[in-house]
Amino acid sequence: MSGFPEAEHRARLARAQLAMAEAGLSALLLTTEPEVGYITGFQTRFWESPTRPWFVILPAQGDPVAVIPAIGAPLMARGWVRDIRTWVAPDYADDGLSLLADSLCEIGGDRIGLPDGLESHVRMPLSTLRALELRLAPARLVGDAGLMARLRSVKSPAEVQRIATACAIAGRAFGRVGEIAAPGVAMSVVFRGFQRLLLDEGADWVSYVAGGAGPMGYDDVISPATDVPLAKGDVLMLDTGAVCGGYFCDYDRNFSLGPVAGAMQDAHSRLIAAAHAGFDACRPGVRAAAIYETMNRALGDPPYAGRLGHGLGMQLTEGLSLIPADHTVLEPGMVLTLEPGIATGGGRTLVHEENVVITETGARWLSPVSGETMQRI
Amino acid sequence: MSGFPEAEHRARLARAQLAMAEAGLSALLLTTEPEVGYITGFQTRFWESPTRPWFVILPAQGDPVAVIPAIGAPLMARGWVRDIRTWVAPDYADDGLSLLADSLCEIGGDRIGLPDGLESHVRMPLSTLRALELRLAPARLVGDAGLMARLRSVKSPAEVQRIATACAIAGRAFGRVGEIAAPGVAMSVVFRGFQRLLLDEGADWVSYVAGGAGPMGYDDVISPATDVPLAKGDVLMLDTGAVCGGYFCDYDRNFSLGPVAGAMQDAHSRLIAAAHAGFDACRPGVRAAAIYETMNRALGDPPYAGRLGHGLGMQLTEGLSLIPADHTVLEPGMVLTLEPGIATGGGRTLVHEENVVITETGARWLSPVSGETMQRI
Repeated sequence: MSGFPEAEHRARLARAQLAMAEAGLSALLLTTEPEVGYITGFQTRFWESPTRPWFVILPAQGDPVAVIPAIGAPLMARGWVRDIRTWVAPDYADDGLSLLADSLCEIGGDRIGLPDGLESHVRMPLSTLRALELRLAPARLVGDAGLMARLRSVKSPAEVQRIATACAIAGRAFGRVGEIAAPGVAMSVVFRGFQRLLLDEGADWVSYVAGGAGPMGYDDVISPATDVPLAKGDVLMLDTGAVCGGYFCDYDRNFSLGPVAGAMQDAHSRLIAAAHAGFDACRPGVRAAAIYETMNRALGDPPYAGRLGHGLGMQLTEGLSLIPADHTVLEPGMVLTLEPGIATGGGRTLVHEENVVITETGARWLSPVSGETMQRI
Repeated sequence: MSGFPEAEHRARLARAQLAMAEAGLSALLLTTEPEVGYITGFQTRFWESPTRPWFVILPAQGDPVAVIPAIGAPLMARGWVRDIRTWVAPDYADDGLSLLADSLCEIGGDRIGLPDGLESHVRMPLSTLRALELRLAPARLVGDAGLMARLRSVKSPAEVQRIATACAIAGRAFGRVGEIAAPGVAMSVVFRGFQRLLLDEGADWVSYVAGGAGPMGYDDVISPATDVPLAKGDVLMLDTGAVCGGYFCDYDRNFSLGPVAGAMQDAHSRLIAAAHAGFDACRPGVRAAAIYETMNRALGDPPYAGRLGHGLGMQLTEGLSLIPADHTVLEPGMVLTLEPGIATGGGRTLVHEENVVITETGARWLSPVSGETMQRI
């Protein structure tokens, strides 16, 4: 379970029910790992198995109801949710559908919200969703008007602490990259070694590692590692989403294998300056688009084509995006990445990333902010 | 990318298109990591980010069309799919919807299948799915009649080899558990150490670790680790889904901290006997339910309440279940777990798990099959 006190989860429920009332929803139906975990505290790596659907119903008033496979009941019962209804899954005749439909008919009212916006999906078979709609009529399944995403975007102090811990763990692992990366070492070996370092420094698990390497930057930042060996003069970038208590960090560092090329140091300096410009612009009331514009100005010409940061928390990426179209107003407790990039020619890029939390007066670094000089290993 | 030759992916496409014709589908729309990867070879840990949806269309004839965020185009282009259509995501005005709808109108025909059965979900926002249905009318989005799950359940020799490699990696890590587990060591430290061992032995990453410990078995096999320390006399179970080349192993081992209690050894012997009974019953033409019944007979009274195994491959659990209701007929190339359990009293259990592949004449162990004697560390 999450390890948060019951009061933390009850406060989230209260905020959700307030938002539900404003959105005219008679209930909320949650189906995914972060949504279920956010309200109930249910945490398990068993979500990795796609076999079983999991449901939590938030009624308009009162406590949540968990409608889950029996295998998860002992774990759910360790938390604060008391109304736990189970079936033995997988059940080919009725895999939780009747239990869920009956529960929703009992406590769900006539307008049941499902998160349906960007970054969301419904974690149940489409055939179950369609059958559920028929069973519930005339009650309807409607969108949640983005309320779950908005609630999750503002972190409590306890949540921020977990992200800070994940950031500190990654910081110590980044400090040891010289132990695992050197000319001649294959990127696949570097990736494995970096994950070992993250675990060694206290990560519960490592859900995301990406990276790239090349003499003047890298051409792709989402590919898995290949067996290509590092070479003297390469810039190596490692990026990680390590998890601590169910919360992610998400930042990267660049390393030069040998002396740092002048052009690479110049690009690195611009990236650090852009991250600081973004940091300085962060404060409550400012819009995400303004942070994007500030950072892009600091990067200079030509403007970078990608998004320059995003929210993070129980997912590697969640909530706002630092793009021109995002008009989200920053609030204290929002956690985001500042992620400037520079094209270094020939289709190559250099990217840099830090994590910050918005405070009452500005922002606070969660990642141990990088110096201007690119690290040499 | 997957690293499989193009011919491997083309053979999968041909089988899919044959099954689509039989099911009367004019196209298939894929949205999830294993489904997209199975056909195209697209492999990246970037799926961890929920921000962007990814789509692949299989037309009735001809090559697949990828409709994906621009950030993924360089990686997709390293594979064999040539028709790659991109948008810059996230786009708050139209996050791939028009591009997908236009592509489906062009090549999708009037009955477009989506995987909709057990273990599936549609990885796009519900609002996008509903808007897509309106845009496509009178063409319809229908279920895929389980064809993707059936195709994926029968592994090629190259796929079996990857699962075998993952199993061998885990086997070496299990052989070193004595290095990381001892009385007084917290379970959370054991879990971290075991993940480090798996990486050290060659896992690309570790998507799943579970376990339990107690003097006469454990009360829950899906909980994350706590800081409770191991004690002399405990039985420690570790279970892992380590990933190699995009394919999982999924098996466990039990260890006694100190001398093995007689009752624990008896239970362990029954589990091993049940796994062997299941193995001996495995051959083409036999139904999943029959394997379940054979194993349950070998376990003796009282019968175990859970499922006694499942398919695995690109997901930790996929395909058939060893339960009374599963009438799937085994075929050569199916990979499954044999996972007997025994209640040891007081709400505690002992579970054991092995991985096998069905061959023309029977089955072959993929995990390095356990001896009858419980290991002592």
